[in-house]
Amino acid sequence: MKRIMLTVAYDGTNYNGWQVQPNGVTIEGELNQALCALMQEDIAVIGASRTDAGVHALCNIAVFDTESRIAPEKIAPALNARLPEDIRIQASVQVADDFHPRHCDTKKTYEYRIYMGKYENPIGRQYAHFVYVPLDVKKMQQAAAYLVGEHDFKSFCVAKAQVLTTVRTIYDIKVQREGNYLTIRVCGSGFLFNMVRIIAGTLLEVGRGQIESDQMKEILDARDRQAAGPTAPARGLTLVEFEFCGNE
Amino acid sequence: MKRIMLTVAYDGTNYNGWQVQPNGVTIEGELNQALCALMQEDIAVIGASRTDAGVHALCNIAVFDTESRIAPEKIAPALNARLPEDIRIQASVQVADDFHPRHCDTKKTYEYRIYMGKYENPIGRQYAHFVYVPLDVKKMQQAAAYLVGEHDFKSFCVAKAQVLTTVRTIYDIKVQREGNYLTIRVCGSGFLFNMVRIIAGTLLEVGRGQIESDQMKEILDARDRQAAGPTAPARGLTLVEFEFCGNE
Repeated sequence: MKRIMLTVAYDGTNYNGWQVQPNGVTIEGELNQALCALMQEDIAVIGASRTDAGVHALCNIAVFDTESRIAPEKIAPALNARLPEDIRIQASVQVADDFHPRHCDTKKTYEYRIYMGKYENPIGRQYAHFVYVPLDVKKMQQAAAYLVGEHDFKSFCVAKAQVLTTVRTIYDIKVQREGNYLTIRVCGSGFLFNMVRIIAGTLLEVGRGQIESDQMKEILDARDRQAAGPTAPARGLTLVEFEFCGNE
Repeated sequence: MKRIMLTVAYDGTNYNGWQVQPNGVTIEGELNQALCALMQEDIAVIGASRTDAGVHALCNIAVFDTESRIAPEKIAPALNARLPEDIRIQASVQVADDFHPRHCDTKKTYEYRIYMGKYENPIGRQYAHFVYVPLDVKKMQQAAAYLVGEHDFKSFCVAKAQVLTTVRTIYDIKVQREGNYLTIRVCGSGFLFNMVRIIAGTLLEVGRGQIESDQMKEILDARDRQAAGPTAPARGLTLVEFEFCGNE
């Protein structure tokens, strides 16, 4: 038996998210289907990040076990030949038999991209949220700074989520403008359901002047989803970096 | 009567090019349909660049006449509300009654984008040609320099094209690498059918070592399509700038 780790890039536009669903096509479902056909085994991958419908990734992680004698590095090109063009394996390597992508200390980085303009730009519209009102980037940067560190992010999590704890650590948030694009880059130990999109939606309210920068502390303290801004649309979000820091 | 100029951005992925065709959906066709419905007139635009199937634009130009009393600047948002999301008008302004977008001195800039990697990147795959072999960027830059200036570009034009002259002027070509992307940026007075894609395909052969940089002069002198490299795929090409330098 070999345990294989795949690095998976995908354009989430046409998918109902990562996780296999009773209805709708998912990244995980497409991977399982291609793997079963390729390896001639009954394979179900374990994913590291169950990204939402419409969210993209440069480097999500999927792990599976196989009895096959195919060399690990040959799995990536063979799988790519079977996958639709909006999913591409970037690497396939053998890992330790007890490696589990969700029972590890990790550092994940998400980018939320915003296109600012008078009218939408059709080129790359799948990967950016369009905003036509001017945004105060400086205020967004000031507001973002309040989120860095270990906090209870209950206000930035969908109300119905069932989790043991809503405490998470954000190592860094950068809000940077480049031409017409504004990128919110968030690096953390892990994220709650919709957390980055609620952070982006709240920072957008700050940029528009609907929320003051220093209200971010009160929003965190409220531990109430109602206190934060709306959930920004999925299309702007991409998982861009994934780092394992060792088993727990 | 007013003559209106539209600046049109589009993702060409799902279109059979700019020009109205007996079969297939085109940018021009979508514009005409939306304009007729909006203005309640029988309108057919005149386009500046008849881009190929699958080619993108940030700023193609379309001109039409109207009797409507709608303020020119209001046409852009009203049209956008009727157009599919892969076409977006960036501006609508009134121009001189005798302005014709193809009877003007112009400066057009195209960008041809190449993604270099071991495996394709699904994010932004619609806007870049994927190449997995290493490219010698320096040799491509040296080769590109031969094309700058006024030349007979017959070797870089589809053989069947019916044009009065195949002489064109290229003001500038830049081949630049940024991360995994290589961009060939070509600025010229005008371009022959498939010219930028044949230039890109030939420079790719240089990058791969199939053609030497200094062979570019012989390829130009041959005035024969067979002498140049293949036509690079449409998806990498975007019309990025358009400048009118006054009527002829």
